[in-house]
Amino acid sequence: MRAADIIGKKRDGQALSDEEIAFFIQGVASGSIPDYQASALLMAVTLRGMDEAETVSLTRAMLRSGRVLDLASVGAPRVDKHSTGGVGDKVSLILAPLAAAMAVKVPMVSGRGLGHTGGTLDKLESIPGFRTDLGPEEFAANVKELGLCITGQTEELAPADRKLYALRDVTATVRSVPLIAASIMSKKLAEGVQGLLLDVKCGSGAFMKTLEDARELARAMVRIGGSMGVATAALITNMEQPLGKAVGNSLEVKECISALKGKGARDLMELTLVQTAWMLNLADSISEETEVRPLNQWTLKKYREEAMDYLEKGDALRKFVQMVDAQGGDPEAVFEPSRLPLAENITPVAAPANGVVRKLDAYKVGRASMLLGAGRERAGEPVDPAAGIILSKKVGNEIRSGEPVAMFHYNDAARLAEARDVFLSGLEIGDREPAPQPLVLDVVLTA
Amino acid sequence: MRAADIIGKKRDGQALSDEEIAFFIQGVASGSIPDYQASALLMAVTLRGMDEAETVSLTRAMLRSGRVLDLASVGAPRVDKHSTGGVGDKVSLILAPLAAAMAVKVPMVSGRGLGHTGGTLDKLESIPGFRTDLGPEEFAANVKELGLCITGQTEELAPADRKLYALRDVTATVRSVPLIAASIMSKKLAEGVQGLLLDVKCGSGAFMKTLEDARELARAMVRIGGSMGVATAALITNMEQPLGKAVGNSLEVKECISALKGKGARDLMELTLVQTAWMLNLADSISEETEVRPLNQWTLKKYREEAMDYLEKGDALRKFVQMVDAQGGDPEAVFEPSRLPLAENITPVAAPANGVVRKLDAYKVGRASMLLGAGRERAGEPVDPAAGIILSKKVGNEIRSGEPVAMFHYNDAARLAEARDVFLSGLEIGDREPAPQPLVLDVVLTA
Repeated sequence: MRAADIIGKKRDGQALSDEEIAFFIQGVASGSIPDYQASALLMAVTLRGMDEAETVSLTRAMLRSGRVLDLASVGAPRVDKHSTGGVGDKVSLILAPLAAAMAVKVPMVSGRGLGHTGGTLDKLESIPGFRTDLGPEEFAANVKELGLCITGQTEELAPADRKLYALRDVTATVRSVPLIAASIMSKKLAEGVQGLLLDVKCGSGAFMKTLEDARELARAMVRIGGSMGVATAALITNMEQPLGKAVGNSLEVKECISALKGKGARDLMELTLVQTAWMLNLADSISEETEVRPLNQWTLKKYREEAMDYLEKGDALRKFVQMVDAQGGDPEAVFEPSRLPLAENITPVAAPANGVVRKLDAYKVGRASMLLGAGRERAGEPVDPAAGIILSKKVGNEIRSGEPVAMFHYNDAARLAEARDVFLSGLEIGDREPAPQPLVLDVVLTA
Repeated sequence: MRAADIIGKKRDGQALSDEEIAFFIQGVASGSIPDYQASALLMAVTLRGMDEAETVSLTRAMLRSGRVLDLASVGAPRVDKHSTGGVGDKVSLILAPLAAAMAVKVPMVSGRGLGHTGGTLDKLESIPGFRTDLGPEEFAANVKELGLCITGQTEELAPADRKLYALRDVTATVRSVPLIAASIMSKKLAEGVQGLLLDVKCGSGAFMKTLEDARELARAMVRIGGSMGVATAALITNMEQPLGKAVGNSLEVKECISALKGKGARDLMELTLVQTAWMLNLADSISEETEVRPLNQWTLKKYREEAMDYLEKGDALRKFVQMVDAQGGDPEAVFEPSRLPLAENITPVAAPANGVVRKLDAYKVGRASMLLGAGRERAGEPVDPAAGIILSKKVGNEIRSGEPVAMFHYNDAARLAEARDVFLSGLEIGDREPAPQPLVLDVVLTA
């Protein structure tokens, strides 16, 4: 088998066999296939696509390029959640301890932010001392003991994906549904989970801008999960405006601490409860040969109420504190948020007109937050844990000219003016309230 | 400007600007753009194409990545010929000395064979001592003094093309009209020619299998030549069966020596004379602002008769001897072909039936010759100068069962049986003579 022939087959729009995909991915992982052949195949896949069987094959080959955790010993049900990335999306930090408190095992391997989007690891690392570089043994031990652990991808998990992801970033081959789906799923399935909830973000602040694209990605991932024997469901959720009120690492951790007490912004609480309900539903589906049940209104309501109970009686917050402690972070910071990093400068952004906020563009808010230091333009760059934005208003709120629409938190003012311009270019104030948009746009259970 | 953005633009099917193409090609030449980005762009171009302006831009950028020879001092008219490659196509070895004898300056930078096709350099190097690694000064001096020189591409000519060509070979991006056209033209225009005749081969043994594809490539190259101020014409010629009777390096040199005396196979003489006539016509077009005149029947006939005169009176052969001598080859070998390499084994291939040869597939004959040692599977491999095939019959000839249809020349019998099978699978003997096919399928003078 020759790499060039495999590339040529995909160039001509033909489907690759399991053997061809396995050969190529093993070659990428071992280094016997050079980067320039890998990137040519990535571009051919981006432009020619992959069918269902190929996408499953690709995921399996990437999964097998590294270690697959066997977490049977940590107990069951093991269910994780993955978000495709958005602005202000801190749900993982609330949902993981909440689900763990409700007896779900949550082995969560997370990522970092890039561009306008934030990352779970960056957020957690704003807690002084918090470690996100746990090895597989420590990871398994924590999940077993506490019911959850959130850490970064190690060298051992899906190394072919690591190589391909780095290449995609610099060869304009990021936007390809089979490549995105296989990349996400190979990492998630390496965690040894039995159930997986996917949050496919859709809208200005998301990777997928249209419902159609989001559905395509959701279906591809649900199909892969099902083929691999993992109970998988996808929610397509709204990312037109940021989720909650905080954008930026320590600012979001503070918001999560409130939410873990049951006192968070309406949209944040809503999405957290719905996703927790879905995780519980997936946990229930595991014994039933991975066929995921639809969640009817009554069951959803029941799960939500149970979850709200666990928040209100403090069990979820306790799990969070235990996790912070177990991963080297300062548990006191949870009770005294002044121990978390705080920016030297906090400055309001004034509304330019009277009226109702009609739009608060998630992409623009994310970019502004990045310009203040909270995010990174390129992979590998450091972030300022204290920088970010607190939204004083959200879509639908009334506002008067001159009143603050948001507070900018920053240590470095170098790109402050640019951040303000970007932020304001995403703000729309009008006379009439906009039509309300649903938070969950669709549920995808089958491919 | 970022390489990834340029790749993304082409991935989306947009046209690249002159500045973007220049930036990318300079980066490839200098090494600041890594191979994996170059190969992603090559695949995007292969699948999305390039428009006329982009293709001209790409050629100019590749040309400018290296040295452009200024051959003004060697005199005029300077006209070269390029063939896209075929089986048994040894026309350059006859035409270059013939045109030089007729006062055309022929600065010819040639290539090597790959796969089933032969290469002019490999053929010339079968002459003991013949050097094809002349530097630009020696090259210019020879063209000035003798009227011709045939040598290989130096490091200095179109280095971006050398890098991209090597990448295309291993990334399944060879078959792209804009990439082929820019690659050929950047090398040819770096020679400092005023006129250029393109022989675009078409058929089983050629790169372009259909007349439509061949026309597309011809038009692209004629357009580039015109844009660069070089009088350019393309002939699309038949490559369904090998040209002439010899396939293989020293075997073809021997056939050329006969042809230089006016005694060659009908199709070989015919194509050589037509191409020489076109080179003379291009030489005449140079002063007329590169607009190439069509060649009417009477002028074609006049030029052909003149060219035949130069063959018959021995002037072309003398030029060939002078070139061999000037480039370190053994000039005696021209008069005593026994001084050229001869294979240890010569064995006939018997016709399997009585009848008329209806097909002698050029690709299959080329593959068989390669398997006997005359060609190389991969760039960089050595070739056996003595190996190859002499066709005893060509399409339209009658043959009896058991009579030799060809003689195989070889030193290494390792793949002899395979060569015979491949050869015979391309041979068709039938009852009726096939319809005669024209040698020149089309002439392309404008894009």
